[in-house]
Amino acid sequence: MESMMIYMPAILAVVGLAFMWAKRSWVLKQDAGDGKMKDISSHIYEGALAFLNAEYKLLSFFVVGASIALAAIAYVVPTTHYLIIVAFIFGAFFSALAGNMGMKIATKTNVRTTQAARTSLPQALKVSFGGGTVMGLGVAGLAVLGLTGFFILFFHYFMGGEWTNTTQMTVVLETLAGFSLGAESIALFARVGGGIYTKAADVGADLVGKVEAGIPEDDPRNPATIADNVGDNVGDVAGMGADLFGSYVATVLAAMVLGNYIIEDMGGNIVDAGFGGIGPILLPMAIAGAGIIISIIGTLLVKISSNSAKEAEVQKALNIGNWTAIALVAVASYFLVTWMLPKETLTMGFFVGGAEGFEYMDIASIRVFYACLVGIVVGGVISAVTEYYTGLGKKPVLSIVQNSSTGAGTNIIAGLATGMISTFLSVLLFAFAIWASYAFAGFYGVALAASAMMATTAMQLAIDAFGPIADNAGGIAEMSELPAEVRERTDILDSVGNTTAATGKGFAIASAALTSLALFAAYVTFTGIDGINIFKAPVLAMLFIGGMVPVVFSALAMKSVGKAAMKMVEEVRRQFKSIPGIMEGTAKPEYDKCVAISTEAALKEMLLPGVLTIGFPIAIALIPMLFGYENVLIAEMLGGYMAGVTVSGVLWAIFQNNAGGAWDNAKKSFEAGVMINGEMTYKGSEAHKAAVTGDTVGDPFKDTSGPSMNILIKLTCLIGLVIAPILGGHTEGDIPNEEISVGMENTINTEVIAEDISKEVQVNMTSEGGETIAKVRITTTKKGKTTVQQKTFIGTEAEVEKQVQDLKDKA
Amino acid sequence: MESMMIYMPAILAVVGLAFMWAKRSWVLKQDAGDGKMKDISSHIYEGALAFLNAEYKLLSFFVVGASIALAAIAYVVPTTHYLIIVAFIFGAFFSALAGNMGMKIATKTNVRTTQAARTSLPQALKVSFGGGTVMGLGVAGLAVLGLTGFFILFFHYFMGGEWTNTTQMTVVLETLAGFSLGAESIALFARVGGGIYTKAADVGADLVGKVEAGIPEDDPRNPATIADNVGDNVGDVAGMGADLFGSYVATVLAAMVLGNYIIEDMGGNIVDAGFGGIGPILLPMAIAGAGIIISIIGTLLVKISSNSAKEAEVQKALNIGNWTAIALVAVASYFLVTWMLPKETLTMGFFVGGAEGFEYMDIASIRVFYACLVGIVVGGVISAVTEYYTGLGKKPVLSIVQNSSTGAGTNIIAGLATGMISTFLSVLLFAFAIWASYAFAGFYGVALAASAMMATTAMQLAIDAFGPIADNAGGIAEMSELPAEVRERTDILDSVGNTTAATGKGFAIASAALTSLALFAAYVTFTGIDGINIFKAPVLAMLFIGGMVPVVFSALAMKSVGKAAMKMVEEVRRQFKSIPGIMEGTAKPEYDKCVAISTEAALKEMLLPGVLTIGFPIAIALIPMLFGYENVLIAEMLGGYMAGVTVSGVLWAIFQNNAGGAWDNAKKSFEAGVMINGEMTYKGSEAHKAAVTGDTVGDPFKDTSGPSMNILIKLTCLIGLVIAPILGGHTEGDIPNEEISVGMENTINTEVIAEDISKEVQVNMTSEGGETIAKVRITTTKKGKTTVQQKTFIGTEAEVEKQVQDLKDKA
Repeated sequence: MESMMIYMPAILAVVGLAFMWAKRSWVLKQDAGDGKMKDISSHIYEGALAFLNAEYKLLSFFVVGASIALAAIAYVVPTTHYLIIVAFIFGAFFSALAGNMGMKIATKTNVRTTQAARTSLPQALKVSFGGGTVMGLGVAGLAVLGLTGFFILFFHYFMGGEWTNTTQMTVVLETLAGFSLGAESIALFARVGGGIYTKAADVGADLVGKVEAGIPEDDPRNPATIADNVGDNVGDVAGMGADLFGSYVATVLAAMVLGNYIIEDMGGNIVDAGFGGIGPILLPMAIAGAGIIISIIGTLLVKISSNSAKEAEVQKALNIGNWTAIALVAVASYFLVTWMLPKETLTMGFFVGGAEGFEYMDIASIRVFYACLVGIVVGGVISAVTEYYTGLGKKPVLSIVQNSSTGAGTNIIAGLATGMISTFLSVLLFAFAIWASYAFAGFYGVALAASAMMATTAMQLAIDAFGPIADNAGGIAEMSELPAEVRERTDILDSVGNTTAATGKGFAIASAALTSLALFAAYVTFTGIDGINIFKAPVLAMLFIGGMVPVVFSALAMKSVGKAAMKMVEEVRRQFKSIPGIMEGTAKPEYDKCVAISTEAALKEMLLPGVLTIGFPIAIALIPMLFGYENVLIAEMLGGYMAGVTVSGVLWAIFQNNAGGAWDNAKKSFEAGVMINGEMTYKGSEAHKAAVTGDTVGDPFKDTSGPSMNILIKLTCLIGLVIAPILGGHTEGDIPNEEISVGMENTINTEVIAEDISKEVQVNMTSEGGETIAKVRITTTKKGKTTVQQKTFIGTEAEVEKQVQDLKDKA
Repeated sequence: MESMMIYMPAILAVVGLAFMWAKRSWVLKQDAGDGKMKDISSHIYEGALAFLNAEYKLLSFFVVGASIALAAIAYVVPTTHYLIIVAFIFGAFFSALAGNMGMKIATKTNVRTTQAARTSLPQALKVSFGGGTVMGLGVAGLAVLGLTGFFILFFHYFMGGEWTNTTQMTVVLETLAGFSLGAESIALFARVGGGIYTKAADVGADLVGKVEAGIPEDDPRNPATIADNVGDNVGDVAGMGADLFGSYVATVLAAMVLGNYIIEDMGGNIVDAGFGGIGPILLPMAIAGAGIIISIIGTLLVKISSNSAKEAEVQKALNIGNWTAIALVAVASYFLVTWMLPKETLTMGFFVGGAEGFEYMDIASIRVFYACLVGIVVGGVISAVTEYYTGLGKKPVLSIVQNSSTGAGTNIIAGLATGMISTFLSVLLFAFAIWASYAFAGFYGVALAASAMMATTAMQLAIDAFGPIADNAGGIAEMSELPAEVRERTDILDSVGNTTAATGKGFAIASAALTSLALFAAYVTFTGIDGINIFKAPVLAMLFIGGMVPVVFSALAMKSVGKAAMKMVEEVRRQFKSIPGIMEGTAKPEYDKCVAISTEAALKEMLLPGVLTIGFPIAIALIPMLFGYENVLIAEMLGGYMAGVTVSGVLWAIFQNNAGGAWDNAKKSFEAGVMINGEMTYKGSEAHKAAVTGDTVGDPFKDTSGPSMNILIKLTCLIGLVIAPILGGHTEGDIPNEEISVGMENTINTEVIAEDISKEVQVNMTSEGGETIAKVRITTTKKGKTTVQQKTFIGTEAEVEKQVQDLKDKA
């Protein structure tokens, strides 16, 4: 059984994908309605496909470019193999595939939801949530399948499917990082491009249609209305999917890297584990795999029976599924941790005190489970905090509503202040998560906290994707001029979807933040530095630059929306003027022209932020090299940059998402009417107009720049991770492609230098063909405290032996 | 001559104050105009006094509370003396005195400027700039006099006026930190409270007066108009003055602390300096003193001759004075550096490489001058960048103007984006300043870069304070219904004042940021830690929390403005309704009620942000102590917090100031008319209304929350500095008050542990009465690289000797 565990997550992923396929067939079998509905739905479907195709074209150029860069890294760094390129391409392909599947099913489900809503609400929920489930399981299944599949492949290719040593495993994991990088690159395109697309279409449709021409939302006479509906799918479905796909993969990968370092800390071999000696590496994959099955159970619990149900019942049904899934993940984590980790204790390196405080300690392996609990709980609470700050009827939103009565200015100030204040609790929680999960189980604990939180990704995405599907379904009902009760039913789903969208964003930020931290920890271990000292001026300078990048990135994204929206406005105006009969409904607008404008603008405007994201970490690694800086210092500088991006990125993500969400719901509050200064105030009032202005500002915040922060911080840390081996003190060389025969030699040389001080030099040599890799570890124990230095040498056997001897002499 | 240098800065400060007094007498001798003008002016004067008195009352409570806290610190920490309380009280008093003098002269000068404007523009400039000069020299003079005066006092009290050792000097400087803390605490009240005051009055006056009642700005019928004019003085004059007073003192102090560490790095005594052996400590004071005289020269160059001059000529006159002063500071720095520092080389500890890369290097002392140049140049360029992003007719402001045509929403987005993008260049420059000044001369270089930049503070403040004076003068002209030409002349001055206000804010941010860095460096050396490693989870958690605080602080400040403005709105509405004849001008509004509302609200609303600022660093130091964390780790955690606050605070300061400035000038652009889509657009258009909304949002940004960031980051780092000795590895004990007799014993014990490794243990014992202080320094040289550890022991001679012996045995 145990030895099979390496295949288990992949098998569970396949089970998830099979369930997904069955669900998909069921959804597609549902009635797609009659003529006009079908017509509109196929417009949306084609618009979405048009965007995807244009995106894939651009992506293919990017993939080629990035592959060349990776080839260069593989050439320079001995522990990075050329297979990283293959992994990268597949990572990009799998992520794109997941997005493609999600978009397709979402755009097929919308019309079926509309049709189902003609019969009953429970049926409409079943269909729309079914579509969401397909999306969720597709993303999670492909993520786990891809990651674990490549791990199995590389584990066999580099290590012959059996544990050799941590250096070899590092090669496996560094190569696997390519998969994660590929996935996150697609997320950049999908999230940022998608965010620009959806808001350009939305603003364009609203400004000319609603404001200038005075026709209602989703009116088929509006040329931008199809683009607007496509945008919901591009941004909220594909963008969110790619974001979570990337987080899922990166989190598990980072945990695996840190698991490998646990094995190293335990002497390079775990004796008491029955999982091929790689229990700590398999554990995060196992939790991810279990999460897929748990999510299936969760989705099965989401149903309502009464046709007269309201928002509360629908929300409750979703909550039951979600909470059950989260609780089951906690239970599963307990069993997996106790089963898969060395039974009693793990040895881990901790920073416990000052500069000399790096200590190896034996901790009870159950503490890894506590770390998982921290992740699960904090993920849930951060979602709740997000809901509080953005929820209808809650104090922050009501305060924005009150401030709308004195005009747009005060509405905006209140919204900005709400977003800013909301960082308080979220960041405190987040700091607590870092502190607690580290206190329990070091950075491995931090990574597993993230893994446990991410385990319900499929369920989260199902809940998240059902919102835009319901939104689309309502649009189709409106455009097809169906009876009001249909729209009422889809509106109930849409309204619940808005709440889940907010909590989903909270989940996405929390996961991105924890993922980045895990990657950050993996980065430090990959580079072999023993810390990032911000008291070094160049490191501090990079911390400042890192802090600035999310701010500038957000501004660029916001400006892009503005530019793209302007183009859309002009096009819609042109059509209204030049197509006779368009306002009377006798002539059809040219939907495809608007779709093309959004598509083109989104992809073009995405380039500059993309260059910023990718260019800065590379420049920070390369420029100081040209100036002859030591690799160790450069590694710290890049680490400082990563920390700056993460800290500032998390802040700006929370600020922008919550401010945007709060403005949105402040505006929506007027639909049912709100009490301002003792008077009921409705849509169309001056206060409502002020709230609409606030929402205009909030739109790019919550749908473009805010969510992009997730990608920015993760991608920054992933690029750092891929660059890390260059800075990791390796010398030139390469590991040939032929099967590696592993020879091993272990020299231990302990000497007592002074009373109470002892030095141990441990050499781990792996040789193969003309190449020898030596990993030297010098452990100094002083007054019971232990510090460890590590170096890796690569070269011919004679060279390496000489270097090792030199080091021993010095030690 | 050389031995007198310790008194020189104080003497120069007295010269500056004497010049200030002469200028003040000249200004007060000018004609204060006739009845109505005098009446209005005295209303403003009394309003300002009312605020000051209320503020001082609140402050006295604060000072008592803070003194008790300082007494506790002095009790616990042996190197912190009870005299720190005296220094603190005087720091607060001097800062308050400077603010008081500045406010008084500003409110006396305004009416004299109006009167002067009746005769000619050159005369109006002379009077208004004269008032600014009084303010500038008062602030700078008192800052330098207070700091150097207390240094002389403590130097004699603790060290008998002669160099003994760095430990004693540390006691002097730690006690002196109280002066800086006192000054910065007043700045918190003046900047934040003043910021809330000025905007509450401004928004209140505008919303009811201009918008609801339709009467012009500064109309005497508006009850809030006096409060509005008082606000200009409270916020822009006293607030800015207190801010720069604090920066000036803190920068010089930090440089002195780091200068002391240079002496320590050079073996505890400098042999070749002729300045009582404290050249590196005196240098920053000398530059500050020279800066006062140079600023006087600068102010003398500011004049125009033609009565038909326009903005450009006035700006040019100010520029000539400013640039001359900056250039002279560069020259003075060159001579002072080469004269006062050890002739050829300085020994400094640098981080040059990785974890073991702390190295002692001999650097040419001229490199300290290069660091000064970096500060001077970067300060100038950051001001220029600020001017670009906020200047009338520049691309960013024009783009906001264009975006106003599609409504308030797009105007707001454009303004936010401008503020965010403006962080790019500013932060890059700032990162460059850190990197370059450190590369030239370590953190001493960073501190001297800040000192050199701050040397022209008096000149900067003169330029800065003249703006609000001109603004007030215009208000008085309007309220007194003087001929249009008078208002035209004051408007020219006001317009130039707006530009200088923007660059002044750039200067204030840059100085606050560099000051914080210098304090940060001083903090690290005070605590004796050898770095801040953000790879330690608790430190990383604090970096996140530190990053969050400026965001929440800003939100609190913005909300405070909103609340206070609402109260003002209600009061103005009440007066319009209940005072018959007020709109006809036959009855007088109750100005004092509005002044009282602003005063009360400002002081009340300031408490929560104040508690946040002061509470967090104290909590971070105390709570982990209760949990038994090691002091060294706590010191790193607090350092991480300080870095987080600084990085995030600088970003939010630049973002908010520049966005606010840009919105303001976008609105102002409509006064002269702007071209939008090929059409000239003026005040009163829809686009203008959108721009007014943007300005409403920008007002608290640029005048309340933005400038408060400066205080937040400086005060955070100062509190850290005062707490530092608690965390600095000292044991319990105290240095008695009696004159200290210094005994010195120097043991050197070098042993070669292994080939290429040598250890040197150096013990420096100072004993007095029953107390012995031992400073032990262990220098390890490995492969030519040197690392140093230091410990301080305090206790009876026997105890200390035992501890030292233990350490020697271990080393």
